[in-house]
Amino acid sequence: MLAPVVCHNQLAKNIHDTCSQFGAAHRWGPGENETGMNRLALTDADKAVRDWFVKEAKGLGCEVEVDDMGNIWAIRGGVSDSRPTQDGSGKRLPPVIMGSHLDTQPRGGRYDGVLGVMAGLEALRVLKERDIKTWRPVGVVCWTNEEGARFPVSMVSSGVWAGEIPLGKAHSLKEVAGQEGKTMMEELERIGYLGDKKCSYEEMPMAAHFELHIEQGPVLEAKGKKVGVVRGSQAYKWFTVEVVGKEAHTGTTPYAQRADAFMAANSMIHYARWTGEEQDVLVSVGVFQVFPGSVNTIPGRVKFSLDIRSSSTDKLAQFVERHLRPKFDSIAKNVGANSQPCSVTWQEDTNSPAQLFDEGCCQAVKVSALSVLAAECQGNMEKAVGLVKYNMVSGAGHDSVHTAKRCPTSMIFVPSKGGLSHHPEEFTSEEDCVRGAQVLLESVLRFDREVWREDYERETAVE
Amino acid sequence: MLAPVVCHNQLAKNIHDTCSQFGAAHRWGPGENETGMNRLALTDADKAVRDWFVKEAKGLGCEVEVDDMGNIWAIRGGVSDSRPTQDGSGKRLPPVIMGSHLDTQPRGGRYDGVLGVMAGLEALRVLKERDIKTWRPVGVVCWTNEEGARFPVSMVSSGVWAGEIPLGKAHSLKEVAGQEGKTMMEELERIGYLGDKKCSYEEMPMAAHFELHIEQGPVLEAKGKKVGVVRGSQAYKWFTVEVVGKEAHTGTTPYAQRADAFMAANSMIHYARWTGEEQDVLVSVGVFQVFPGSVNTIPGRVKFSLDIRSSSTDKLAQFVERHLRPKFDSIAKNVGANSQPCSVTWQEDTNSPAQLFDEGCCQAVKVSALSVLAAECQGNMEKAVGLVKYNMVSGAGHDSVHTAKRCPTSMIFVPSKGGLSHHPEEFTSEEDCVRGAQVLLESVLRFDREVWREDYERETAVE
Repeated sequence: MLAPVVCHNQLAKNIHDTCSQFGAAHRWGPGENETGMNRLALTDADKAVRDWFVKEAKGLGCEVEVDDMGNIWAIRGGVSDSRPTQDGSGKRLPPVIMGSHLDTQPRGGRYDGVLGVMAGLEALRVLKERDIKTWRPVGVVCWTNEEGARFPVSMVSSGVWAGEIPLGKAHSLKEVAGQEGKTMMEELERIGYLGDKKCSYEEMPMAAHFELHIEQGPVLEAKGKKVGVVRGSQAYKWFTVEVVGKEAHTGTTPYAQRADAFMAANSMIHYARWTGEEQDVLVSVGVFQVFPGSVNTIPGRVKFSLDIRSSSTDKLAQFVERHLRPKFDSIAKNVGANSQPCSVTWQEDTNSPAQLFDEGCCQAVKVSALSVLAAECQGNMEKAVGLVKYNMVSGAGHDSVHTAKRCPTSMIFVPSKGGLSHHPEEFTSEEDCVRGAQVLLESVLRFDREVWREDYERETAVE
Repeated sequence: MLAPVVCHNQLAKNIHDTCSQFGAAHRWGPGENETGMNRLALTDADKAVRDWFVKEAKGLGCEVEVDDMGNIWAIRGGVSDSRPTQDGSGKRLPPVIMGSHLDTQPRGGRYDGVLGVMAGLEALRVLKERDIKTWRPVGVVCWTNEEGARFPVSMVSSGVWAGEIPLGKAHSLKEVAGQEGKTMMEELERIGYLGDKKCSYEEMPMAAHFELHIEQGPVLEAKGKKVGVVRGSQAYKWFTVEVVGKEAHTGTTPYAQRADAFMAANSMIHYARWTGEEQDVLVSVGVFQVFPGSVNTIPGRVKFSLDIRSSSTDKLAQFVERHLRPKFDSIAKNVGANSQPCSVTWQEDTNSPAQLFDEGCCQAVKVSALSVLAAECQGNMEKAVGLVKYNMVSGAGHDSVHTAKRCPTSMIFVPSKGGLSHHPEEFTSEEDCVRGAQVLLESVLRFDREVWREDYERETAVE
């Protein structure tokens, strides 16, 4: 397949013009585009970039629909739209969708989410300019509040679409900061994005969901890879662990008389970290609080977060249940050979199972990535193969994790400079952005051709 | 020696009446005396208890002097006062002093410091009532701001007396809390305790300093001992250690790409704690701060306190220099087998060398403790011996640590229930308080007799 080529200048312009106009913040360099972003969901800045997107999509001849979670669906018709549907409903067949989000972290960058939407828009522009017909409708969806930074559930709108989160719960989410504590529903109404379509995989089905995203980690860069084919998302659990011992004077209390909550926690985390590395499980502690917090008082209480991740849901559960819990208990009972006992309690805050992406979608991404890189390498396939990372597992959450439950899904990763993300200096080169957009476009076209073959076979089988 | 006996009821009454009237706080039980204390130095409550003390001491026939750090010296004359001094100055010979403090922690108890002063006063009362003549003058000193809780240098006034802390620095110390930030000098003047005597070991010398104090730790109770003979204070150093790595996403950053400041600090402390136990060095961490402090961000920076104690100053220095510093450096360079490097910096906040107490004073305390306990055990010396803990090392700081630099000093410890101190529920039974006061009185009398022998031998040698 000789794919049409996305425009380098147009994509970069759309990313930077919209970021500069709508929500730029946290300047980190003198250059025009050297700022980060603060574009929380459903704020005025978010409304402004949504309005811009709707206008652009309409200008490209798309129909634009908004659902009751404020997700914006820009759809370009396909050849199959004129065919009578099998069920006689007159509805068109589900579209192939490129999705991501336009909201950012309060101290976010210009690429997380934004790249996926702008690349989708650029793909639609190329299809229109080259007058390329697709079998299925092809479109872009902007998901609302993916970050969870303003309304505190991340990927909430794709969650509602997938039937994983009740609409009412999502609508009544209150903003995290701000005195007034507005709900998502109130803010959707205020900015005019409470649409009349029902946000649901049954009402607004997709043939597939492709998401181009920055990696937000250091792996591609460190390994010298240019494109990552994402095979799924890893499982993760968040816990709050509390260790209670007994406060005592650091100077007058021998080891044998201590119930040192700090040192118990220290040993627990030490065990978790090194056993985690042995077993290929990621263990991180980001929050650690000590009470009462005085230099010469042995802490009587310690509370810490435990973030545990693995590519396998089962492996993660086993790691926690078979290794951590019994070992934490035994450490609490006896920190050292002669110490007094502490107690330990666990609270599970988040449980997100691993999600595998669709084989066919991943295949479309893989072949497209090789095709794009082979062209760049003047046909040197060996070199091209070396520039693709296969079977990546997404460490962060994405809307694709929800869509994968209800339709074929895959993701494309491009490198993040220094692995930096959720930070104003988040950076992905224009070249990497354009390459990612090209892979996205080719993946959609490949997938559409495959669906056309399947639809054709089904129709002929019926006849 | 058949020692006069201190009065149980009088000592208990003095402790509890003054605590209930002047600065009681933090009620923890329904009983009359079941409160803690909040009697910060040079507050109105502190002035009130000082005024009470001065009146009591004068009622016992003592001369009362106040120095320019507000230390109150209550002195009962000795037989030697009528003898001409060797230097012809007309000054009396230095007194044997019982010292401690009346200020408390903001959430303190009724015994820390208070016991030592009230026991001294009770000893003076017994001497007066039994009309016992001592060779040297005998007295009580109330040291100002021992706790360092209001003006942030602990044992500041005995430090000035010993020439370790300049008077000007002490006078200009600002209170920790409070909008107005008053200085010690201002508050000494305000409550009328800026005395005209110079606080100095040269101007106000002591023949000896004995201090009865609660242990503030669990050792006596745990070992079933009743009296501790304190041989000195341990060395301690306080550090602030800072580890700097690099913030990163917990989900997207493999171990090999992490510079995890938290895990580096965790490993450092783990090493310090267990090596400390092997080498009989106490290692405690009471303050631990994590930046930025988000569940799914690997901390880029961690700051923690390190409180290290040993009975030997040299051993402590070697532990830090030969073990901790090189090991912390190597951990920072390579937290795990494959991690990215962090950096580590140390700041020394406090350095307090070990202080040995005087052999003769300790001997006086030891013999007195045995004598008191032997009487209690109806002469069963074996049992009495088993109730004394010898060669204790004080874990906490005390005014005696400063006085020991300039005059013979020792301390007497009595049990703290559950090792609890700096806490409203700090508790030492009346029986233990009285026993301690009895040992204090006998120690002073024994020491005085020894000094009389020495003075006599010196005088006869001169003649």
